[in-house]
Amino acid sequence: MTKAVFYHAGCPICVDAEQVVLEYLDNSKISTEIVHLGTERNRIEEAERVGIKSVPALVIEGDIYHINYGASLEDVKKG
Amino acid sequence: MTKAVFYHAGCPICVDAEQVVLEYLDNSKISTEIVHLGTERNRIEEAERVGIKSVPALVIEGDIYHINYGASLEDVKKG
Repeated sequence: MTKAVFYHAGCPICVDAEQVVLEYLDNSKISTEIVHLGTERNRIEEAERVGIKSVPALVIEGDIYHINYGASLEDVKKG
Repeated sequence: MTKAVFYHAGCPICVDAEQVVLEYLDNSKISTEIVHLGTERNRIEEAERVGIKSVPALVIEGDIYHINYGASLEDVKKG
């Protein structure tokens, strides 16, 4: 099964996008891990490494889909 | 059933995102209409009216999810 990772930081745009991801992605084809970079700060480096520039972002099969624009990763790092 | 509209303009980023949308959205919960603004130019005005700024973009329940950044709607209008 394909694994998706949804990175967010708890911003309003992130929360809206998370609802859509959880509601409408096909669970029979794809499993989705939700990563809150505001609380799981030890994963910020991982997010940078895969190429994420801003949140919310959805990573599927190595491709990154930045969704709208909630916050830059630089802002997330500042906390 | 929820109706989603995926607007794109045939750009490489658009095509990648279209594949993900078609492959992983749950067809039992959501039906997706694909609109190619490069060929269906009469729908550019509709896209602007709903608030789309760039393509690819996914509209679900009135919320717009701009995905990455392929082309601005201004560029699409220039054709």
